[in-house]
Amino acid sequence: MSERIFLGIDLGGTNIKAGVADENANVISKVSIKTHRQDGVDAVVQRMCEAGREAVSQANLDISEIEAIGIGAPGTLNHKTGIIIAPPNFPDWQDVPIRDMVSKQLNNLPTTLENDANVAAWAEYWAGAGKGCDSLVMLTLGTGIGGGIILNGRIHRGFHDTAGEIGHMMIKVDDRPCVCGQTGCLEAYSSAMNIAKIATEAVKAGRESSLKKVLDAGQEITCKLIEEHLRAGDKLAAEIWDDACRYLAIGCIDIANVIDPEMIVFTGGMAKAGDLLLNAVRKHFQEIRSYVFSGIIPKLAISKFGSEAGFIGAAGAAKLARDLGEI
Amino acid sequence: MSERIFLGIDLGGTNIKAGVADENANVISKVSIKTHRQDGVDAVVQRMCEAGREAVSQANLDISEIEAIGIGAPGTLNHKTGIIIAPPNFPDWQDVPIRDMVSKQLNNLPTTLENDANVAAWAEYWAGAGKGCDSLVMLTLGTGIGGGIILNGRIHRGFHDTAGEIGHMMIKVDDRPCVCGQTGCLEAYSSAMNIAKIATEAVKAGRESSLKKVLDAGQEITCKLIEEHLRAGDKLAAEIWDDACRYLAIGCIDIANVIDPEMIVFTGGMAKAGDLLLNAVRKHFQEIRSYVFSGIIPKLAISKFGSEAGFIGAAGAAKLARDLGEI
Repeated sequence: MSERIFLGIDLGGTNIKAGVADENANVISKVSIKTHRQDGVDAVVQRMCEAGREAVSQANLDISEIEAIGIGAPGTLNHKTGIIIAPPNFPDWQDVPIRDMVSKQLNNLPTTLENDANVAAWAEYWAGAGKGCDSLVMLTLGTGIGGGIILNGRIHRGFHDTAGEIGHMMIKVDDRPCVCGQTGCLEAYSSAMNIAKIATEAVKAGRESSLKKVLDAGQEITCKLIEEHLRAGDKLAAEIWDDACRYLAIGCIDIANVIDPEMIVFTGGMAKAGDLLLNAVRKHFQEIRSYVFSGIIPKLAISKFGSEAGFIGAAGAAKLARDLGEI
Repeated sequence: MSERIFLGIDLGGTNIKAGVADENANVISKVSIKTHRQDGVDAVVQRMCEAGREAVSQANLDISEIEAIGIGAPGTLNHKTGIIIAPPNFPDWQDVPIRDMVSKQLNNLPTTLENDANVAAWAEYWAGAGKGCDSLVMLTLGTGIGGGIILNGRIHRGFHDTAGEIGHMMIKVDDRPCVCGQTGCLEAYSSAMNIAKIATEAVKAGRESSLKKVLDAGQEITCKLIEEHLRAGDKLAAEIWDDACRYLAIGCIDIANVIDPEMIVFTGGMAKAGDLLLNAVRKHFQEIRSYVFSGIIPKLAISKFGSEAGFIGAAGAAKLARDLGEI
């Protein structure tokens, strides 16, 4: 164990994850507790601090041995002021100075606040699938599609802290509506929720598929079930999966055309499919991308840390902020 | 005049522009000559050097008083090696080590090579519309749509030197074909060439418009003419212009969602329309963008340097490369 120790706390809608890591990204302890967001801001912040203290204790450390704390939280937020502004998943949270609230309860330690997608991307860049990369973009394929961007050894937050909203890139405007109010967003085609929705629509419209049994049994079609039925040979499941991967490839082409990263990393539920995802996205990318850039394709990879990337990246963000003299 | 003097050379398909600027972006001299690309690589490189020497001479300087040279040239190219790889507009150029060829003919001065769209964006960031900005993206609305990206005080080239290909972001895949081989590229809706094409198609399909007279007179409809007829009250011209601005707004939303720059700067022929362009793009941006980010809009501006941004930014890129110790 090296001398410099960091605490990462990842605030999610369902779980709070906290962990202690050294400066080389070795995870020393980890803790996961329920968020219970219905209890309100103060109670949730207190639980974040409890999780943090528990992680420190499990690492056989005293809080005074922690150099700095990193918090990963859903946006919108302001990194500079440490304030969570208005996260869609926490509707009663508005302008919460979470950075200072956490720091105050945890020995006034230097603390930094980052977007949850950004810390996850930072974890992969720091010590995961993208270790040693020049630059990477990470896509979280969950209910929606989130994104984190690492450029030039820094988290790229953008001028208003809203960079990386990859899920709301319009790739087919005037087509499928998105929950965000726009049309043709990548998320409307390729998020787990929307893939399940598209499959449900198709089965209800009479398409033949083994997925019909799921609906007949009164259950919901999920992205995970689509993957299972595809592996078992269902044609509709295969078609829907391939379509989703095609739109993901289009999103990746747009990312490549704008920022040209060395690597694109996938995480979230759909990424658990591994090569089934990567191979399909890579195939469509190569088929669709302009001949002018043929052969130029970012490396495509699956995240190393999965659902632990949040707290690991938060700890890494704390180290980064210290190294840059920000905190 | 300050002590540090830089020479910028901008290689275009039609013209070579060269100019001398000091470290504060004061232009001391400028020269424009024809490219005559049909004469082949060696002749064109020689003309670039002639233009450079002429600019130095007009500034009443000796070549030895120049600190460094910047070259702006069409991609694809490799900034690190100084090689032009395969520019679509110079089909007989392949793997031309232009940086070293120019340096050799010009006193072996330290020389840097950058993409033409990148140097133009750098000029606006250094001393133009985006002076003092945190970050900017510049869109060149010409025959095609080019892009240059400035982040964190640096030209963002991307891992394969192909960042900023904004014109080939697919915003409406499976719709209008693009010359690049993809479908639904921003360029297919909003480049000067495609706007003219869309108007021509509409008039030929029987839509009523004062633009019909242009075709009847055996002339071609251009983007400039569409702007003129729109200002004279033609409804079809107004509709086509507005559509093009709507797609530009969608492109800007995608840029904002991915990299969230402080400013987006427009240049090229269509940008000469000024507020007619900016107001329409801004209106559509605000109408279309997700309510989640409502109110968050990059500053939109018209370039200050217009067609001179190339050599000014090339001189600025030479200064930057020196300041960073790259050359």
